[in-house]
Amino acid sequence: MPDKNRIAELREEIDDINLKLLELLNRRATVASEIGKLQIQYSSQIYDPVRESAMLTELQMVNEGPFSNETLNALFKEIFKATLALEEKEARANLVVQRKTPDQQTIIEMADGTQIGNSDFQIIAGPCAIESYEQYEEVAAALADEGIKIMRAMAFKPRTSPYDFQGLGEPGLKIARQVANKYGLLLVSEIMDASQLHMMTDYVDMLWIGARNMQNPHLLRAVGKTNKPVILKRHFAAKLQEFLYAAEYIMSEGNHQVILMERGIRSFDTWTRNTLDISAVPLLKKESHLPVIVDISHSAGRRDIANPLARVAVASGADGLMVEVHPNPDVAMSDAKQQLNIAQFKSMMAEVRKMLPTRAVKKEHAGD
Amino acid sequence: MPDKNRIAELREEIDDINLKLLELLNRRATVASEIGKLQIQYSSQIYDPVRESAMLTELQMVNEGPFSNETLNALFKEIFKATLALEEKEARANLVVQRKTPDQQTIIEMADGTQIGNSDFQIIAGPCAIESYEQYEEVAAALADEGIKIMRAMAFKPRTSPYDFQGLGEPGLKIARQVANKYGLLLVSEIMDASQLHMMTDYVDMLWIGARNMQNPHLLRAVGKTNKPVILKRHFAAKLQEFLYAAEYIMSEGNHQVILMERGIRSFDTWTRNTLDISAVPLLKKESHLPVIVDISHSAGRRDIANPLARVAVASGADGLMVEVHPNPDVAMSDAKQQLNIAQFKSMMAEVRKMLPTRAVKKEHAGD
Amino acid sequence: MPDKNRIAELREEIDDINLKLLELLNRRATVASEIGKLQIQYSSQIYDPVRESAMLTELQMVNEGPFSNETLNALFKEIFKATLALEEKEARANLVVQRKTPDQQTIIEMADGTQIGNSDFQIIAGPCAIESYEQYEEVAAALADEGIKIMRAMAFKPRTSPYDFQGLGEPGLKIARQVANKYGLLLVSEIMDASQLHMMTDYVDMLWIGARNMQNPHLLRAVGKTNKPVILKRHFAAKLQEFLYAAEYIMSEGNHQVILMERGIRSFDTWTRNTLDISAVPLLKKESHLPVIVDISHSAGRRDIANPLARVAVASGADGLMVEVHPNPDVAMSDAKQQLNIAQFKSMMAEVRKMLPTRAVKKEHAGD
Amino acid sequence: MPDKNRIAELREEIDDINLKLLELLNRRATVASEIGKLQIQYSSQIYDPVRESAMLTELQMVNEGPFSNETLNALFKEIFKATLALEEKEARANLVVQRKTPDQQTIIEMADGTQIGNSDFQIIAGPCAIESYEQYEEVAAALADEGIKIMRAMAFKPRTSPYDFQGLGEPGLKIARQVANKYGLLLVSEIMDASQLHMMTDYVDMLWIGARNMQNPHLLRAVGKTNKPVILKRHFAAKLQEFLYAAEYIMSEGNHQVILMERGIRSFDTWTRNTLDISAVPLLKKESHLPVIVDISHSAGRRDIANPLARVAVASGADGLMVEVHPNPDVAMSDAKQQLNIAQFKSMMAEVRKMLPTRAVKKEHAGD
Repeated sequence: MPDKNRIAELREEIDDINLKLLELLNRRATVASEIGKLQIQYSSQIYDPVRESAMLTELQMVNEGPFSNETLNALFKEIFKATLALEEKEARANLVVQRKTPDQQTIIEMADGTQIGNSDFQIIAGPCAIESYEQYEEVAAALADEGIKIMRAMAFKPRTSPYDFQGLGEPGLKIARQVANKYGLLLVSEIMDASQLHMMTDYVDMLWIGARNMQNPHLLRAVGKTNKPVILKRHFAAKLQEFLYAAEYIMSEGNHQVILMERGIRSFDTWTRNTLDISAVPLLKKESHLPVIVDISHSAGRRDIANPLARVAVASGADGLMVEVHPNPDVAMSDAKQQLNIAQFKSMMAEVRKMLPTRAVKKEHAGD
Repeated sequence: MPDKNRIAELREEIDDINLKLLELLNRRATVASEIGKLQIQYSSQIYDPVRESAMLTELQMVNEGPFSNETLNALFKEIFKATLALEEKEARANLVVQRKTPDQQTIIEMADGTQIGNSDFQIIAGPCAIESYEQYEEVAAALADEGIKIMRAMAFKPRTSPYDFQGLGEPGLKIARQVANKYGLLLVSEIMDASQLHMMTDYVDMLWIGARNMQNPHLLRAVGKTNKPVILKRHFAAKLQEFLYAAEYIMSEGNHQVILMERGIRSFDTWTRNTLDISAVPLLKKESHLPVIVDISHSAGRRDIANPLARVAVASGADGLMVEVHPNPDVAMSDAKQQLNIAQFKSMMAEVRKMLPTRAVKKEHAGD
Repeated sequence: MPDKNRIAELREEIDDINLKLLELLNRRATVASEIGKLQIQYSSQIYDPVRESAMLTELQMVNEGPFSNETLNALFKEIFKATLALEEKEARANLVVQRKTPDQQTIIEMADGTQIGNSDFQIIAGPCAIESYEQYEEVAAALADEGIKIMRAMAFKPRTSPYDFQGLGEPGLKIARQVANKYGLLLVSEIMDASQLHMMTDYVDMLWIGARNMQNPHLLRAVGKTNKPVILKRHFAAKLQEFLYAAEYIMSEGNHQVILMERGIRSFDTWTRNTLDISAVPLLKKESHLPVIVDISHSAGRRDIANPLARVAVASGADGLMVEVHPNPDVAMSDAKQQLNIAQFKSMMAEVRKMLPTRAVKKEHAGD
Repeated sequence: MPDKNRIAELREEIDDINLKLLELLNRRATVASEIGKLQIQYSSQIYDPVRESAMLTELQMVNEGPFSNETLNALFKEIFKATLALEEKEARANLVVQRKTPDQQTIIEMADGTQIGNSDFQIIAGPCAIESYEQYEEVAAALADEGIKIMRAMAFKPRTSPYDFQGLGEPGLKIARQVANKYGLLLVSEIMDASQLHMMTDYVDMLWIGARNMQNPHLLRAVGKTNKPVILKRHFAAKLQEFLYAAEYIMSEGNHQVILMERGIRSFDTWTRNTLDISAVPLLKKESHLPVIVDISHSAGRRDIANPLARVAVASGADGLMVEVHPNPDVAMSDAKQQLNIAQFKSMMAEVRKMLPTRAVKKEHAGD
């Protein structure tokens, strides 16, 4: 069998080539990474299709086979992709928002000891908007009854039309504070402009950046200078990387108490308002050490699937969920179709409780 | 809120008009049907575009709004179309796929008694493609060890490029059948063209329609004429309503054993291959009586979030999940990044088992 | 032929039913429209799937055929859809942004007599960002040479990462003003926060609202209180209706000098940065009287198709286009891949000029 | 800017490494190919996953980064795959669909001398579906009158619901052929399954693959074995690269007469049925030598913007457009909202003619 010996010889040559390829690929990655670091001073965009195209053209011109130009293109594209991924990973490694170790986990602690990001599953609930003392108190009582600690207190509503109900403003916050004090609740409220900051911090315990403001640098930086925890809501068309960079805008100013909220992406289907992107939860947990919660109201835009979505939120590994609750959703001044009434809310809470035993403090984001 | 009362009054008037419209539409259908029966004596053509056009013209001449003539044209065209289709449609008019009662639930029973759609949670697993006897048997043994009953047996792979590995074909099915018999497993295999039907039914227990064929009427009708259960995979850009109509194509031919598989939609994010649309599960269960399963491999396109996605699938109310498993994913001939190795598969199974106690036979699709 | 007489009789009955349906449908539309007007006080959302679902259920319960419930569902869904379209049209009819007559056309006139929205095709050009006096002047000279009147003067750049180059700020505006005065150019500059308004109006002739701020009510209202023309850029995930409502936020404060800029939507393809939605141009012209321009730089994100996109912009009926020009794009501090160098810009201008004779003042948005 | 110099230096090093990688990869391929030839004497299986796995393990053991083992696995897997496929691929390795030189341009010539892909702009028109002799002839006469050469002859309609009108089938084709012969027109018709091929080629001059079948390998290969020109319609969710690969499936079987048709992508906006992706035209022309046409009917789904879209199609550099025309769209059995009536069609033709002088044979796809 001389062929067998010949095969063995050839295989040794292959092994040798493999090692040289390994060395070159790693050297290439090192150089590319250095370029990446220089480029990052100008832009967060490392990917440069024009440069890649030029490199491919040059390689094609000198290629004499046996690999075809097409095959080499495919191989080098893989090399480019791997290099790019490495550079992006390095770029992210310096971000404050980025998970550094498997165990790293931001836990946000409120004045009353309530924590978000520990092993508990926090429910944030309340009406879409504060409408009146009576409406707000009815919900607050129900929340307190279910052991909820953090209540929505929305006094400024971003609306598509300038003629839609825009919220009660500061008088709404006064109502919310009064009710919250009575029932021992913490308040979270959407801030729409940096100019509201001073006033708002008098009333609320936690700030909320809405989806439309997720990429508003002035506002992000302004809340980044406060010491209030911030719920940051993903824009419905934001990539996860953009979402993390938005958190970085806040954190880069010193405020590290950020909670990421997944809320559904805009897609083509018409049976829901948005498409809940549940995979975002494990991916965000994997990349970042921040708590992640799931908005089950805006993602679906319909209350009839609230119970399965609540179960799904628990199962996803999220640190909590956000749900809209209204004494009588059919007459709500906004988001009527997605708010739960109080009975539905209690039904949802029962579903959540049934799921909690399956939840343990996990470190699955630590690797695979 | 006097406006709310006024809205209620107006809605009552709408309800009253609806009933009158109903009565008139049905009366119209009866009369048109009688005309149709008379016409059929002279001609095979019931459809009379000239008559329709004349009716539209007459209506336009007397219309005083608020509907524009264009809108009325569109509405009456729908009425004409419905009337025209009445006789041939009536027999099968109610979509077979549609849930008729809260309790309705299709349960698919396999030859060995395995059921899909009952209170169990079925796992369907196996490699992306059959590659060799050894590869296939190694997975089969692991599945049997975990109590899995249904195994992927993919011998024809739809690929983006005509030069990619296209599957082993019938020899692959022979391997799969031999291994399945040894381990007491049922096989499900993707059929790509009606011409493969006869050959394939010799080897497999269940057919699989891939996403690319979800709207291929010839293939849907062909499998609809068999008595094999069919897994129908949602196209990554199909609306849920289109998905249900695709199932109807199969069911309208007599085969009611259809399993709907959610598998992620194409979106803008780049951290996953597709975006798992988990809300689709409760929505499909609400609208249809068919079993629904979740493909956790193609939805994410990455194995490192398989465990949370498996938990999410259980929590969503799905009847099962589908996952790709390969002895050594790194050398797999396709879908390398998303297949679990056997240890990862066992880890996923442990997660699923932990979730099962939270699952009870639910009727939440019955309404809200 | 007694049957022929019978057919004639039955057809008369059909005609009679048609008229009654017409009357009922219009009556229904009137009532629904009144409901819509009451609802609009609370929300811009008229569509109410829960109510529709309830109406369908009631109709199904009393339906005795011959139309099946499925057919009636389909017919009533068409009626609902038409009614909804009517209500939305009425809601929009009151908007300032909405076209009222076929001839209505907003023409914006600048201090030097330059007009946007008349029969000319205006080119707005300039670098992505002001980087230095030299860089800015080199572009300005080229623009002046080509007869361009309006120049980009971006001193504040919204960036994904807080560590990216964020623009030169006010010193950049000083450079731009100095250069503009020398070459007789008008300046347009992005405003990121209402707090910049006072400073910025000292330097620039026209304001620019970026995509990320398209739904920032505070900023929209603030520029709505100025007398500067405003370019409003569509968010990459905004529906056209949302885009028009954003313009309405500005106009409702009194500033009617708004220019709508289409700039591509976020989609799944990876060969372009965004997908230019060219149909948006005729649709926006049809619905609104405002000038519409096309951003050919951000829509594609690559310069190599700038010439065909510029031709397409002219052909679409737009009132102008916006393009990024840089003396040396490869070293630009942002958007390197999409900026044209000066030779490419001149080539693009030649293409535009070749197209202009095909352009005539058209009234095609007046109806169909 | 010393950093720019440093980047240039580092890029030179990258270029150097690229060349070394090229040399090693090709050397590796040569050696592997020799092994393959020896192995083939013992077994038909060249693929040896055990050997691959051993090589990966060895590389992982010596890897010192910066690439992670996982990344190197992925890269070497690509190298293994490319090597494995080398022999069978080499013959046809360069994609047939891909443009090889700036001047390369496929021109398809029909029996009567009509050409697609030359400097003319071809209009393909006709009703959505053949409904009757009278309907079809009325359109044919109008087309002939306008100098149109190629007519839609759709006898099989892919529909969402199995109960919708599915086309007249072969009798429809008989009508179309008869009418086409009378008016000197060429016919193009959608083929839904390979089993229709034999029958259909008797009637039509050109085949049409619908969007739903764009990734149906059996059908693509079947039409690839004919000598009929094929219009290939992009799926509404297909990336451009997937679209080109679909063309490659046809061309790899020998039929190079393929026409690519852009038709709009599924997006989130609701004012159009799909979003016309006009940038696809220059991008497809850049990458491929095949003719590209624009479907202005399905992209918009509404006839009132047909004229601007037709102008845009000409301006984009496309080789033609496709438009639906019906004598009386309001009573059409499908696609009523988007078909033009004959007067509207003539108006559109006038717009197209006005644009043609701006069109010259261009080579802009040759580079930038």
